[in-house]
Amino acid sequence: MTGPRFTPLVASLPATVPFVGPEAMQRDRGRPFRARLGANESVFGPSPRAVAAMARAAAEAWMYGDSDNHDLRAALADHHGVAPGNIAVGEGIDGLLGNLVRLVVAPGDPVVTSAGAYPTFNYHVAGFGGRLVTVPFRGDHEDPEALVAAAAETAAKLVYLSNPDNPMGTWHGGTVIEAMLARLPEGTLLVLDEAYLEFAPAEAEARIAADDPRVIRMRTFSKAHGLAGARVGYAIAAPRLVAAFDKVRNHFGMTRMSQAGALAALQDQSWLADVRRKVAAARERLGRIAADNGLLAVPSAANFVAIDCGGDGDLAAAVLRELVVRDIFVRMPGVAPLDRCIRVSAGTDADLDAFAEVLPQALAAARELAGS
Amino acid sequence: MTGPRFTPLVASLPATVPFVGPEAMQRDRGRPFRARLGANESVFGPSPRAVAAMARAAAEAWMYGDSDNHDLRAALADHHGVAPGNIAVGEGIDGLLGNLVRLVVAPGDPVVTSAGAYPTFNYHVAGFGGRLVTVPFRGDHEDPEALVAAAAETAAKLVYLSNPDNPMGTWHGGTVIEAMLARLPEGTLLVLDEAYLEFAPAEAEARIAADDPRVIRMRTFSKAHGLAGARVGYAIAAPRLVAAFDKVRNHFGMTRMSQAGALAALQDQSWLADVRRKVAAARERLGRIAADNGLLAVPSAANFVAIDCGGDGDLAAAVLRELVVRDIFVRMPGVAPLDRCIRVSAGTDADLDAFAEVLPQALAAARELAGS
Repeated sequence: MTGPRFTPLVASLPATVPFVGPEAMQRDRGRPFRARLGANESVFGPSPRAVAAMARAAAEAWMYGDSDNHDLRAALADHHGVAPGNIAVGEGIDGLLGNLVRLVVAPGDPVVTSAGAYPTFNYHVAGFGGRLVTVPFRGDHEDPEALVAAAAETAAKLVYLSNPDNPMGTWHGGTVIEAMLARLPEGTLLVLDEAYLEFAPAEAEARIAADDPRVIRMRTFSKAHGLAGARVGYAIAAPRLVAAFDKVRNHFGMTRMSQAGALAALQDQSWLADVRRKVAAARERLGRIAADNGLLAVPSAANFVAIDCGGDGDLAAAVLRELVVRDIFVRMPGVAPLDRCIRVSAGTDADLDAFAEVLPQALAAARELAGS
Repeated sequence: MTGPRFTPLVASLPATVPFVGPEAMQRDRGRPFRARLGANESVFGPSPRAVAAMARAAAEAWMYGDSDNHDLRAALADHHGVAPGNIAVGEGIDGLLGNLVRLVVAPGDPVVTSAGAYPTFNYHVAGFGGRLVTVPFRGDHEDPEALVAAAAETAAKLVYLSNPDNPMGTWHGGTVIEAMLARLPEGTLLVLDEAYLEFAPAEAEARIAADDPRVIRMRTFSKAHGLAGARVGYAIAAPRLVAAFDKVRNHFGMTRMSQAGALAALQDQSWLADVRRKVAAARERLGRIAADNGLLAVPSAANFVAIDCGGDGDLAAAVLRELVVRDIFVRMPGVAPLDRCIRVSAGTDADLDAFAEVLPQALAAARELAGS
């Protein structure tokens, strides 16, 4: 008896996954983290209105969620001044990226991104057999000119850019994105990941017509809205592309609680403003903590700060390990030269107290290892 | 400016979707249903313990859910007497079926199912370019012998069978499934959809070794556990197949609320037993309502009853329309001769009172249309 015959593509895929979650790390360690600052979650939590809406929806969980996500899409359309036909809702940006790649990328099709950018996007490209072409960051920023050039050279189906970017937290002005769009080769779709846009200055937002067929913008409730555990992302795009998601998506895949929670979160803009202020304060404090340790923080427009550990990737990896050993969960970029940094999410005062307490010890231990 | 270049496969897919949800129907009608008996949801609701667990999890929704679904998988493994490595958790059986088809079906690969069986499975097969081969139901039952014969003839990658089946609610004894497995051609995987198994007699459950590589069993919290809106399904299969899901799934796709709700539901077996009793009583009453109207109910081992309207598909479709007009949401099989029936989910006493009140009017109206 043999097992199932996997497709040749699936048989060729590695078993590695984009991220090991903090729960898995806690199980391995046998104890919880003191500060959970690795996944760019919002430690400030979701709006109490969103929590209440999800609790109410839980009692009605015997009913499938609305497969059209009608109310949420209508509210998002209203919020962005676009039509509901411009909005696709999905199981986080991760879920939307997977379906987008499936729609556009056939085996062998080229896709362009930055070396060190979002691993889950790369995971989906590999998962559908796409050929990933990378260009380096430039001065800790994604490089729109190089991305466009690589897209033109390879006739890429997709080119990915995050603004603000992950993992460095830097950003481009909206006009830079608009200029990139103007130079985009015919037939290449710009995947503009704006997961962290709520934390950035207003001028980071590109002015893009809702029906522009050259771009799909990705947004999420996982970051500023504090609903990572509810899995709600959405895309803004031309109606033809939005409608195409209906050909492949899991139609009843959005939970009732998630739809209700996201809708309530969207309606609590004062909570969002408060979270923005707290994140800005946390970024400043992370900068001070870095400086207190003789380190440089990369200026961030996101809800995390990349801190340059002052050495190579091995040193930063050692700092990260020493932080984790001391119960501080952080992550780091995967590619040089970005990997000279660790990436620390905005935390509560208590979280940052813990980080400030432990960082000097972690640095000392890492440097000792590096020197030995 | 053109838009994105879809893959040839995606460009060839129809825009039709497997189901129109009841919320969409209510929006079109401009008023709610009196009785929601079309989607085989559990009107008896989830365990109050599951509701409480989801409400508690809502307050922690700022954290991503555990990407390993560790606690839920461990509890399910314990419940079924298998190892956690035999359990894959996903966004409903729908989500698991999509990923399974992606793992196994390359464009052109044959897949066997019964004509009139689960449309969402067919949607996924089409979505990955599989070639669907159907065999007819036999005496309102799926036909294991014909399914195996078709699988052998076509060298199918997958053969799908639901037990109890949807949309008729009939069932086979576990020994019939075991015999089917013994005759399964080498290289064909049996997809055994047991979404409704909790409502069936104990002897409907096939005895299958957890590590048997020839079969994957699908289970869900959407039916007996009353958590359709939380999207939690799981598969029981050999570890090699379970591990393959990690190559393609949305790793952080399960919400925190859903994981917590399903775990609490699993731990409340007395609630489950109570739901089973209520469903059995509702099935009996649906049989009496049918008989009171001179109709035959197909004996059901699921949480719904197919009622033979005594004519062809057009008559049943007319009865369905007249029920919907009168605010009773039901569905019907899509393929002859099954489509002589409407399919009515188990309801509360009030739901079934409404159905009993309206059915004679709907039948009279449908017959008048048919005679005119």
